[in-house]
Amino acid sequence: MKVRIGVIGTGAIGCEHAKRVSKVLTGAEVVAVTDVNLESSEKLVKDLGIDAVVYKDGHELIAAGDVDAVLVCSWGPTHEEYVLAAIEAGKYVFCEKPLATTAEGCRRIVDAEIAHGKRLVQVGFMRPYDAGYRMLKDVVTSGELGEPLMVHCAHRNPEVPEMYVTAMAIQDTLVHELDVLRWLLDDDYVSAQVIFPRTTRHSHSKLADPQIVLLETAKGVRIDVEVFVNCKYGYDIQCSVVGEDGVANLPEPFSVTTRKDGKCSRGILTDWKKRFLDAYDVELQDFIDGIKVRSLTGPTAWDGFAASVASDACVKAQESGEIVPIHMPPRPPFYNAE
Amino acid sequence: MKVRIGVIGTGAIGCEHAKRVSKVLTGAEVVAVTDVNLESSEKLVKDLGIDAVVYKDGHELIAAGDVDAVLVCSWGPTHEEYVLAAIEAGKYVFCEKPLATTAEGCRRIVDAEIAHGKRLVQVGFMRPYDAGYRMLKDVVTSGELGEPLMVHCAHRNPEVPEMYVTAMAIQDTLVHELDVLRWLLDDDYVSAQVIFPRTTRHSHSKLADPQIVLLETAKGVRIDVEVFVNCKYGYDIQCSVVGEDGVANLPEPFSVTTRKDGKCSRGILTDWKKRFLDAYDVELQDFIDGIKVRSLTGPTAWDGFAASVASDACVKAQESGEIVPIHMPPRPPFYNAE
Amino acid sequence: MKVRIGVIGTGAIGCEHAKRVSKVLTGAEVVAVTDVNLESSEKLVKDLGIDAVVYKDGHELIAAGDVDAVLVCSWGPTHEEYVLAAIEAGKYVFCEKPLATTAEGCRRIVDAEIAHGKRLVQVGFMRPYDAGYRMLKDVVTSGELGEPLMVHCAHRNPEVPEMYVTAMAIQDTLVHELDVLRWLLDDDYVSAQVIFPRTTRHSHSKLADPQIVLLETAKGVRIDVEVFVNCKYGYDIQCSVVGEDGVANLPEPFSVTTRKDGKCSRGILTDWKKRFLDAYDVELQDFIDGIKVRSLTGPTAWDGFAASVASDACVKAQESGEIVPIHMPPRPPFYNAE
Amino acid sequence: MKVRIGVIGTGAIGCEHAKRVSKVLTGAEVVAVTDVNLESSEKLVKDLGIDAVVYKDGHELIAAGDVDAVLVCSWGPTHEEYVLAAIEAGKYVFCEKPLATTAEGCRRIVDAEIAHGKRLVQVGFMRPYDAGYRMLKDVVTSGELGEPLMVHCAHRNPEVPEMYVTAMAIQDTLVHELDVLRWLLDDDYVSAQVIFPRTTRHSHSKLADPQIVLLETAKGVRIDVEVFVNCKYGYDIQCSVVGEDGVANLPEPFSVTTRKDGKCSRGILTDWKKRFLDAYDVELQDFIDGIKVRSLTGPTAWDGFAASVASDACVKAQESGEIVPIHMPPRPPFYNAE
Repeated sequence: MKVRIGVIGTGAIGCEHAKRVSKVLTGAEVVAVTDVNLESSEKLVKDLGIDAVVYKDGHELIAAGDVDAVLVCSWGPTHEEYVLAAIEAGKYVFCEKPLATTAEGCRRIVDAEIAHGKRLVQVGFMRPYDAGYRMLKDVVTSGELGEPLMVHCAHRNPEVPEMYVTAMAIQDTLVHELDVLRWLLDDDYVSAQVIFPRTTRHSHSKLADPQIVLLETAKGVRIDVEVFVNCKYGYDIQCSVVGEDGVANLPEPFSVTTRKDGKCSRGILTDWKKRFLDAYDVELQDFIDGIKVRSLTGPTAWDGFAASVASDACVKAQESGEIVPIHMPPRPPFYNAE
Repeated sequence: MKVRIGVIGTGAIGCEHAKRVSKVLTGAEVVAVTDVNLESSEKLVKDLGIDAVVYKDGHELIAAGDVDAVLVCSWGPTHEEYVLAAIEAGKYVFCEKPLATTAEGCRRIVDAEIAHGKRLVQVGFMRPYDAGYRMLKDVVTSGELGEPLMVHCAHRNPEVPEMYVTAMAIQDTLVHELDVLRWLLDDDYVSAQVIFPRTTRHSHSKLADPQIVLLETAKGVRIDVEVFVNCKYGYDIQCSVVGEDGVANLPEPFSVTTRKDGKCSRGILTDWKKRFLDAYDVELQDFIDGIKVRSLTGPTAWDGFAASVASDACVKAQESGEIVPIHMPPRPPFYNAE
Repeated sequence: MKVRIGVIGTGAIGCEHAKRVSKVLTGAEVVAVTDVNLESSEKLVKDLGIDAVVYKDGHELIAAGDVDAVLVCSWGPTHEEYVLAAIEAGKYVFCEKPLATTAEGCRRIVDAEIAHGKRLVQVGFMRPYDAGYRMLKDVVTSGELGEPLMVHCAHRNPEVPEMYVTAMAIQDTLVHELDVLRWLLDDDYVSAQVIFPRTTRHSHSKLADPQIVLLETAKGVRIDVEVFVNCKYGYDIQCSVVGEDGVANLPEPFSVTTRKDGKCSRGILTDWKKRFLDAYDVELQDFIDGIKVRSLTGPTAWDGFAASVASDACVKAQESGEIVPIHMPPRPPFYNAE
Repeated sequence: MKVRIGVIGTGAIGCEHAKRVSKVLTGAEVVAVTDVNLESSEKLVKDLGIDAVVYKDGHELIAAGDVDAVLVCSWGPTHEEYVLAAIEAGKYVFCEKPLATTAEGCRRIVDAEIAHGKRLVQVGFMRPYDAGYRMLKDVVTSGELGEPLMVHCAHRNPEVPEMYVTAMAIQDTLVHELDVLRWLLDDDYVSAQVIFPRTTRHSHSKLADPQIVLLETAKGVRIDVEVFVNCKYGYDIQCSVVGEDGVANLPEPFSVTTRKDGKCSRGILTDWKKRFLDAYDVELQDFIDGIKVRSLTGPTAWDGFAASVASDACVKAQESGEIVPIHMPPRPPFYNAE
């Protein structure tokens, strides 16, 4: 039996997920779609040649009897509402980041899910599904580095549009590191500090770029993340874990090495969509497979909440220039790995 | 509508392909299986939980009305017979290498397919589906290296069993380079020579290991392939194309770099199955997708024939120590890319 | 005419410099030596087979009529006294780090040299003479990276003895980065902060190891240096300059790459003496050559003072956990490059 | 006491060696020079500011009482004559390659040196003095690769002038590999074959470029050397030794890695003079040091003879297209390492 999926929000990411479910992944089919712009939903159904009903809004879609699971891909401010509705309907829900626009909103989802008594929510953090981060985590958890002591990261984009302002370096960009490093280290953040180097001439008036974010974890690991979103040269994600006995680096993407014109070189991706392309497939397949065995194992609502708490602290640290403590409540036993 | 597939031969590779079609790929389902050992076929159906009929032999399976396409995964000497039967029945057929055990056998398949008037056959050469070789071909065909002049390759396996004898270095190992280099260079071989270095102490009594195979192409490109199947350290595939204006190398597999114990190192695969894992998926998905649009684009029967002709010449070159000319007939227009 | 050199302090580093002058470099000879342990000086003269007078102390040696230049290699607390005496005698003096044990002491040397009216002092900072740092500086000054914005560094030693305490991570280890980064960026420090990650189990009771030192420069460049002196795996010096248009990394030392036992690896040095071996030769040859043309161009007394000021601030930052401002007086025109 | 050196031939290489002895190396001085163009010798003396006599020819220079050792840097066809004269005079002689223009000429030098009874001759093969080849030889002789089975090499130059013809690919270019690989493997050649790939459009009418030279050694090692002298992109020397248990590669030259414009790249040298710059210094210092202890340890007249024999065979192989046996007489015990 295929998992019958409803997609709320048929913008860029919603269309990609619908296509992924219909054409690439196995075990699921898209049976329902909706959007604030219903034409986009109709076009999607037609383009994919699928047999899916276009609902007039997300709540109708969630209520539909033949929808087993929901993908929330709509505008960020609507996420909380749809996720809560799905939980209330007892349906599985995959929610693109952010889970909610505030930590309080995330917490409401966590509380609702716990009240429901069973995991229904997966948050769309895809880096833990990336083959490179998985290899790196294997090395870290093998113990061959000893205990991790430091992590040095860089998150570099070639450029961002004018609408991208200073706080978005945390909320849109760093948030991926905030999620994946918690997972990588199996640890929580206890403080954040943000440092502003001289700004690149390639930045815009409302954006301090680059930034360096310093995080401290409960176990005492110190993390520095360079966020540099107008680095010009490429989309480049680096992560180096320094342990008591050695260092391990995130793999570089696969590429041809050429020797030409006095240089030995390999290409660096410039399009972020290509960097984690496979991870998006694996993430959604994992959601589908989890539903089939009634046990989700991907990023939880709690992970969404934790990223939100850390993100809020980092934005405060941007504003104050101070070291901002991060008060993360203890993880409810409900979210312990089985 | 799903492509309904019959699998002839449910040994290791047949089972993997059946699982791939059923669990990983999209657009097809396994509806029929058979094997000289029917119990293995029954077990496969049960293990995969699929609804497939077990036929008593390949000819019955090919004749079944609900079988759209056949995967020939049986013992090599039976390939020609089943492929010819599938052509006669007008059914699509994916044949694991070798297409036939002799160049003459391959030629009979080519003739039958031309007589049929439409491409039905895809040969199981998976390297042209590997992302690394595709990147390398993109560089070669972009013209940025100028015309290719030389290709330096290595095909190294950690070890082979006692039953692996000298000729198998060509027939089982080099055959992948014979196929992929024709594709990479869009060229044909005109001569072969084999050189035997000192034999490693890790080899067996019936195997001269390593060997160096020298090939010349119609365009004058010179290829050297080191075939070293007891290299001990890993499964390592290297390919470096030297052109008039530069050099390009096949990407190394993705891996974590560590700094530990006085060394900076990254892992080398030791299991060949992992090296081209993705390529097997892409190859078979391409076969399924090709059937849907009634136009196969993967390795052809002619490619199978060409590899067989080159392989025969290399074995002769092993035996004689001479430079052996390769007489490749002109490619029938039937096999020109559209 | 050879430059006639007197060596004060014939411990490990003094002996190496004396041997270097006598056996490796050109244009100079050792004519005078002394040490608190005169036997060590006598042994050195004998071992090298040179014709040098053993003086009873540094002041006698400095006063000797046939001594053109002095190498101060004695115990740190004696440096200031001998350098001042050499300046007073109008003799060239190469002083191993530290120039003086306090910033005030360094400043007294600066003042004395300015009063003398001509550069006589070179400080033993050898990294600006390292071929790798020179290549990196060439890239930085070429402008191809745009303006530098950040520098990420690591200074890792395999291990340190029990006597190495927390402050020495600054005074003995970081001091090399404090010097070379000023030179690399042609910039001065304005603040320092020190962060203490979880301490490695390989550290000692009086040493917090690793440490991360954060520096800000007058031009707004942000520098982070990981100082990790019990990293176990090797002596590893890393430096990555991030500019507006690209990133450049300090070259890795020259090494053989091997493929063996499932790994592709290259050696990392474990002995720090080998890392900058050539730089020590170039540094001292530059001192000798500078004397011949009466124009020293290496690290100045001012550079020694600047490193001392920054080092003091970093130690304060270790103690306070605060961001400590660095008040560096303006560089006297006397020290401007001609 | 300094070794007093006479330089025969004050062209480019002679001037460089004279400068090296006078300004960079220790333990020797240039006391005598000559050339067919005496003005060049006079200019050299003046430029270096040395106190050296200009002799009217090489024989006068060799005969001079204050000349301890001779550097033969004149036109190739005169080498044999001057080396024989130096041996007759019982003087040490460093001869740039070729030792003589024919194998017979080399043999006459070998016979003369043996008759003299003591090693006087060092041939100017500098690659065994290169730090990279030395590291590679350390790995090979450590046994960690097991027995060497194959060596894959490339010798690539950006371009050569019109006067460079096909045979020079052996005599001027491959000759360095012919020397260094004998030393690296401690082995002798037994056959040679030359293969001509399609010629690059960047070549000249009298030059087949690239070429692949295949060598077999007495121990059964198989060597392939790609000689490509109009490769355009750089001066690139590669050497990979494949042994029974692993593979080791010649280090790449030291360089800055940059990330810029969608590429991660490092520079490749384009000027061959920079590639082995240090090796020239080490080679000549070793000659000087050897004279001081009356025991030369560098490349011998026998090594010059062996390279010449192999070179002649390779040229024959170019002409015939056949596998040409190399008949190397047994090494006289006189040349065994002590």
